[in-house]
Amino acid sequence: MINVTVWYEYTQESGILRRDMVPEGISDEVFKGYSAYIEESGRKIREVYPEGLMAPVIRALKENPDLNVTYTTLYDENFGLSDEILDNTDVLIWWAHISHDAVPDSLADKVVERIQRGMGCIFLHSAHKSKPFMKIMGTTGTLRWRNGDFCRLWNTCPTHPIAAGAPEYIDLPEEEMYGEYFDIPKPDDVVFTGWFRGGEVFRSGCTWIRGYGKVFYFQPGHETNTAYYNPDILRILVNAVRWAAPVMWRDSLNCPNVLESPEAKYIN
Amino acid sequence: MINVTVWYEYTQESGILRRDMVPEGISDEVFKGYSAYIEESGRKIREVYPEGLMAPVIRALKENPDLNVTYTTLYDENFGLSDEILDNTDVLIWWAHISHDAVPDSLADKVVERIQRGMGCIFLHSAHKSKPFMKIMGTTGTLRWRNGDFCRLWNTCPTHPIAAGAPEYIDLPEEEMYGEYFDIPKPDDVVFTGWFRGGEVFRSGCTWIRGYGKVFYFQPGHETNTAYYNPDILRILVNAVRWAAPVMWRDSLNCPNVLESPEAKYIN
Amino acid sequence: MINVTVWYEYTQESGILRRDMVPEGISDEVFKGYSAYIEESGRKIREVYPEGLMAPVIRALKENPDLNVTYTTLYDENFGLSDEILDNTDVLIWWAHISHDAVPDSLADKVVERIQRGMGCIFLHSAHKSKPFMKIMGTTGTLRWRNGDFCRLWNTCPTHPIAAGAPEYIDLPEEEMYGEYFDIPKPDDVVFTGWFRGGEVFRSGCTWIRGYGKVFYFQPGHETNTAYYNPDILRILVNAVRWAAPVMWRDSLNCPNVLESPEAKYIN
Amino acid sequence: MINVTVWYEYTQESGILRRDMVPEGISDEVFKGYSAYIEESGRKIREVYPEGLMAPVIRALKENPDLNVTYTTLYDENFGLSDEILDNTDVLIWWAHISHDAVPDSLADKVVERIQRGMGCIFLHSAHKSKPFMKIMGTTGTLRWRNGDFCRLWNTCPTHPIAAGAPEYIDLPEEEMYGEYFDIPKPDDVVFTGWFRGGEVFRSGCTWIRGYGKVFYFQPGHETNTAYYNPDILRILVNAVRWAAPVMWRDSLNCPNVLESPEAKYIN
Repeated sequence: MINVTVWYEYTQESGILRRDMVPEGISDEVFKGYSAYIEESGRKIREVYPEGLMAPVIRALKENPDLNVTYTTLYDENFGLSDEILDNTDVLIWWAHISHDAVPDSLADKVVERIQRGMGCIFLHSAHKSKPFMKIMGTTGTLRWRNGDFCRLWNTCPTHPIAAGAPEYIDLPEEEMYGEYFDIPKPDDVVFTGWFRGGEVFRSGCTWIRGYGKVFYFQPGHETNTAYYNPDILRILVNAVRWAAPVMWRDSLNCPNVLESPEAKYIN
Repeated sequence: MINVTVWYEYTQESGILRRDMVPEGISDEVFKGYSAYIEESGRKIREVYPEGLMAPVIRALKENPDLNVTYTTLYDENFGLSDEILDNTDVLIWWAHISHDAVPDSLADKVVERIQRGMGCIFLHSAHKSKPFMKIMGTTGTLRWRNGDFCRLWNTCPTHPIAAGAPEYIDLPEEEMYGEYFDIPKPDDVVFTGWFRGGEVFRSGCTWIRGYGKVFYFQPGHETNTAYYNPDILRILVNAVRWAAPVMWRDSLNCPNVLESPEAKYIN
Repeated sequence: MINVTVWYEYTQESGILRRDMVPEGISDEVFKGYSAYIEESGRKIREVYPEGLMAPVIRALKENPDLNVTYTTLYDENFGLSDEILDNTDVLIWWAHISHDAVPDSLADKVVERIQRGMGCIFLHSAHKSKPFMKIMGTTGTLRWRNGDFCRLWNTCPTHPIAAGAPEYIDLPEEEMYGEYFDIPKPDDVVFTGWFRGGEVFRSGCTWIRGYGKVFYFQPGHETNTAYYNPDILRILVNAVRWAAPVMWRDSLNCPNVLESPEAKYIN
Repeated sequence: MINVTVWYEYTQESGILRRDMVPEGISDEVFKGYSAYIEESGRKIREVYPEGLMAPVIRALKENPDLNVTYTTLYDENFGLSDEILDNTDVLIWWAHISHDAVPDSLADKVVERIQRGMGCIFLHSAHKSKPFMKIMGTTGTLRWRNGDFCRLWNTCPTHPIAAGAPEYIDLPEEEMYGEYFDIPKPDDVVFTGWFRGGEVFRSGCTWIRGYGKVFYFQPGHETNTAYYNPDILRILVNAVRWAAPVMWRDSLNCPNVLESPEAKYIN
């Protein structure tokens, strides 16, 4: 059984921006503008995903008896990730967009440490600028972007477990354009490469190992488009969860001082 | 001209442990024990390197007219790295061991950001646990260790610029043993692989690209041994500086919102 | 069910060198010397492995009900690999040492093509100079070597499926030393790194993807030593077979001329 | 001084198909059809490149005093590459399309061996199906293709020496579409990623190390389009030659039998 925790930012979907979710020192005017944007995008999300942005993902995961799925948000207690929840998570899915800064550094550090000890982590769409992603990668995750473009995902690593059952390419009629240069460490595998009608390319599905944990970044999932209804996208997410499931854990992240060398026993 | 800044921790060499250089809350007894260790290891360093641990490295660098070398330590103003110094550094060399925690997070973040913008950075020996190394790698840098072993560095990437002029292998009669599993992201190249007589192996010379910057980790340089007098080690360090020198810089680490697509000009 | 074919050279084990198994033009004297070596090493193999060098490997594989194991040698019909056998092989294990040249180029090409179409292939020990290995790698596979050294295999990729259940390191009291520089393409993963008491290191367990197929090279298995009785080595081989099993096959190795672009259907 | 040899197939440019340049057993009718195609494409090449397809490339290379350029074709003596020419080549540029099979295996093997010993090699456009490329890669080089599409090359590794001076992207108004899945070993770096208006993506500029030699594959250069007049493409080719220049050579491709271990001198 793989314990999957879906962590969702929820800010836009709530439609209401809270003062404690924006950096201190933001003026009333800026806050007002932000609030209007949140209200509007929240309405759009609820139109496209009346049961919530993550609902189709959770449903797809729950169809698999080997996956035990928990749903949590930034607005839940402990910002959604108590130590207990995190300690019981094998694979964490992270969707975030607007409120990256509202996640405390201490929580981001805990996520990073748990990946280093064995947890799998799947970063979706705008999570490329989330604290845990930037911390585990050591890079800024910057990219070109533009709203409302046609996206085609090419399967560029057909034998990868994450691509199992995926077609040669997947058409997403509307997505946010994310384009190169994408500032990430060289991936182990670029499983999917994105083509955008506006003219850009993107490493849309990338894998890395960090410590004992596995990381997958996957571009689709703009909040006002429909990617999470696409059965190919959902199959890829299920594949990614199984791929990212921990092979083994380590308890300690210390450096062992090995006083007796491996050769010592042969010397006497 | 490549501006090289050699940043050196200096704590042990000073022979004196300052209260403000250890984490708060350390008991008087522990502090006393630490102080004794610092005093003893400081004496040994001054025996082996009477002009200072970094002196042979700096001398070797200065022999090259294309390198402009600055020396600075944790005990200098701004922990050795004012914004001005950092802004004028093309390649930073970082040796640290005991006082990783005394480097403020904000300074470590500045180093990381400068690497992401183009600066080269060479982490020496025990800098595998320094804040900037762990932050730019996203991993813990843990490894097995043991004092006082014979070390042989194998040249496992003979065509790499950092290995130019290096022999098939380099014998270091005494070094601190650093052994696998070394918790680092998969390197672009493992230029040197270490063999220790006690029985361990180690990825001793590793390269990565992060953002626009280059990173080299190099294991030799235990403070009470003599690696920095070895001409092959010094040649490798000079090579590494030239390899790590910035190809180009970027000013911004933001995500450009490209309102007009590359295709737009062809459509109308 | 994974169909595993164990292809074994057998020349030394037979104890008899056949004239048609050596390159043309070899003098009688050289042939006589070779024959004496074959006779002697054959005797030693039969002492160490009375049931045959591959017997413990085959036994270990057969203990797994998901593996269907076939054994074949260079001295069988069609050099051991008829089209029928090859067409029914999911994972090929290749042990060879003395008679690399006796394998026809056409057979080596068939093995390469089948890997490119999806077959897994595990090259053992001296197969680093076999025709299929050199052809699928594009490199010479050269290395340093010396008989009769103590070997310690370090697990340098602990979360890799091939390392599942493997300890931190494995001691092999006697093995042929294979040392760097090992002339191979950069591996996807270096799962095991070898330490030899005589002073060398080696990338002893390496993985690559080539086309739709997976390749694993594994150093242990010198014919007159005992590696194939070591339970850790056998577990690794079983793991490697499962890892190398085809994810999918492709029938064609041609370049599709895609007259209608993916965009065509959106344009009209 | 870098000795650069530009090897060019020339079949189409000649406008005449010779019987000895096609595989035996081809029927008169097929040969007639081929001949007509050669005649037609030859005419087009001469329209677009009146001085020859390679003329702008050679001119651009010759502007650099550190490059010593030789031009040769399949129709010259020894298929253009005598041992003498090959032995004096530091970087080989290979353009081929129609007559891959007319290159003898023995010549392809010599090119491969010279790369393994240190030579750089740049494979242009349809050389992805040339014998030396497939042999040094160990893969089939298959890809999707279609004539006459708009191509945009994205700079996806901006700090790579081959990308020095290259803009964020390069527009090529007409090129042959080469699309994924491109059957190549995982590149060290994907310096350029192609976008085609018809909907495909492609790893258009890829680097590998093989033995002591460097390999660069670069997609642009369809014979009836104008890529080799584009100054950005020409700058990239000059960069690629300098990058691929040998760092060091090795004479032998044998496995050294090191009878005395590195440790022996310390034991007695």
